[in-house]
Amino acid sequence: MFSDTFSPRFTDTDALGHINNTLVPVWFEGARDNIFKMFTPDLDVNNWQLILAKIDVTFHAQMHYGTEMEVKTYISRIGNSSFDVHQELWQKNQKCASGTAVMVHFCFKQQKAQVISEEIINKMKSHMLIESKL
Amino acid sequence: MFSDTFSPRFTDTDALGHINNTLVPVWFEGARDNIFKMFTPDLDVNNWQLILAKIDVTFHAQMHYGTEMEVKTYISRIGNSSFDVHQELWQKNQKCASGTAVMVHFCFKQQKAQVISEEIINKMKSHMLIESKL
Amino acid sequence: MFSDTFSPRFTDTDALGHINNTLVPVWFEGARDNIFKMFTPDLDVNNWQLILAKIDVTFHAQMHYGTEMEVKTYISRIGNSSFDVHQELWQKNQKCASGTAVMVHFCFKQQKAQVISEEIINKMKSHMLIESKL
Amino acid sequence: MFSDTFSPRFTDTDALGHINNTLVPVWFEGARDNIFKMFTPDLDVNNWQLILAKIDVTFHAQMHYGTEMEVKTYISRIGNSSFDVHQELWQKNQKCASGTAVMVHFCFKQQKAQVISEEIINKMKSHMLIESKL
Repeated sequence: MFSDTFSPRFTDTDALGHINNTLVPVWFEGARDNIFKMFTPDLDVNNWQLILAKIDVTFHAQMHYGTEMEVKTYISRIGNSSFDVHQELWQKNQKCASGTAVMVHFCFKQQKAQVISEEIINKMKSHMLIESKL
Repeated sequence: MFSDTFSPRFTDTDALGHINNTLVPVWFEGARDNIFKMFTPDLDVNNWQLILAKIDVTFHAQMHYGTEMEVKTYISRIGNSSFDVHQELWQKNQKCASGTAVMVHFCFKQQKAQVISEEIINKMKSHMLIESKL
Repeated sequence: MFSDTFSPRFTDTDALGHINNTLVPVWFEGARDNIFKMFTPDLDVNNWQLILAKIDVTFHAQMHYGTEMEVKTYISRIGNSSFDVHQELWQKNQKCASGTAVMVHFCFKQQKAQVISEEIINKMKSHMLIESKL
Repeated sequence: MFSDTFSPRFTDTDALGHINNTLVPVWFEGARDNIFKMFTPDLDVNNWQLILAKIDVTFHAQMHYGTEMEVKTYISRIGNSSFDVHQELWQKNQKCASGTAVMVHFCFKQQKAQVISEEIINKMKSHMLIESKL
């Protein structure tokens, strides 16, 4: 599991007084830096290896400005060329949102999916979501 | 079906040269104004009636800066207090992204779900997704 | 003068119930598409000709969700390689924000400023801010 | 001086391969949390005391994804009811952007400016920008 902590910003709130829902996909993408580095260790944008196929986010509780947040990032499925990233947003010991991103190892030059190497699969395995936690 | 058209902005692009995926939930929420007005016709934020329970977005094709986009918004399920909004993002006659938002009619004062009125259900029915289109 | 109209989104509001100030630079950049096209008519990001040197924004009145907005874009200074873009944000017949962006005609390959051509200066002249309007 | 460090996100880049300029006002507002707390220590949005009158940002160097950033925040002027916040964005020992936000101590109930208390002025004084640094 990867853990990222940060403080939400005033601009992230909306007129209902809480954090707006559209920030969660932004924060989840930010926390996937840990996954991007498995494929592009120096995060060089000219050597990008991944595309995003699908996301879902479930909202469990209201999120608030003024309190630190944590995004927990797990690998939840490893396929041939695609894999799932399970992420949870926690604030004050409460799971506020959770979701899955389906990512594909992709060659931009050839414009097609690529098999994930053994080396990367081994990195992923140390960050697997243990099923009983779901 | 509701149709909203707009031009993506330069800031919406990312280093891969296309539109970043995190913009789609922002645009879909923007296009749900049409749905918000069914519950709060003047969009008064002090009289808000809806919460978002879940979203999913599937990415079908790359989105580009410099060409107009259209979001098509449909009702795809009407429940007792919750309902689904199906949305599609089109650019150059191509469906680039699609997804569903699960919304709940909610009373913020009582902090609980509310039954959707017949009047609102009738408004919704004229914007239903026809199944064969999926 | 170029005019762009659009509806602010719910996510653009903040916990004070109005539009958050950080949206204004986003909207102003969006409306500068009209200026970008003078240098790159097809908005091809691989043929970009401009960099941003400075912005300022003055906030005159609160901006609200639920009412259309207009950005008015003028050229307010033409230099040798740089120029100023003056922009105003209007809502309900009120000027809510205004500001200036200092832009530089720039060659990314040579990494240096370029003289603005007569042809582009002529395009700019038809969108000049008339001083008495300030 | 207040120091905030964070990692820019992939979504913060644009098609030129660098960080888009519109992020700087967002990050600067985020780093002004330190200033907001002088007026509203618990950051309770229902007890807000400040409005933003003006911002300016000068862009000195390109900002990159993949490297940590620091925002340095200083008080640069203390007036009767208004004050200036000077902020700088640093990455890899380079000042990439700097700017000033003019803020006003404001009573939302009475809708008018308020004198800044001695107590708050004393807090501000320990974060003043030393002129020779500019």
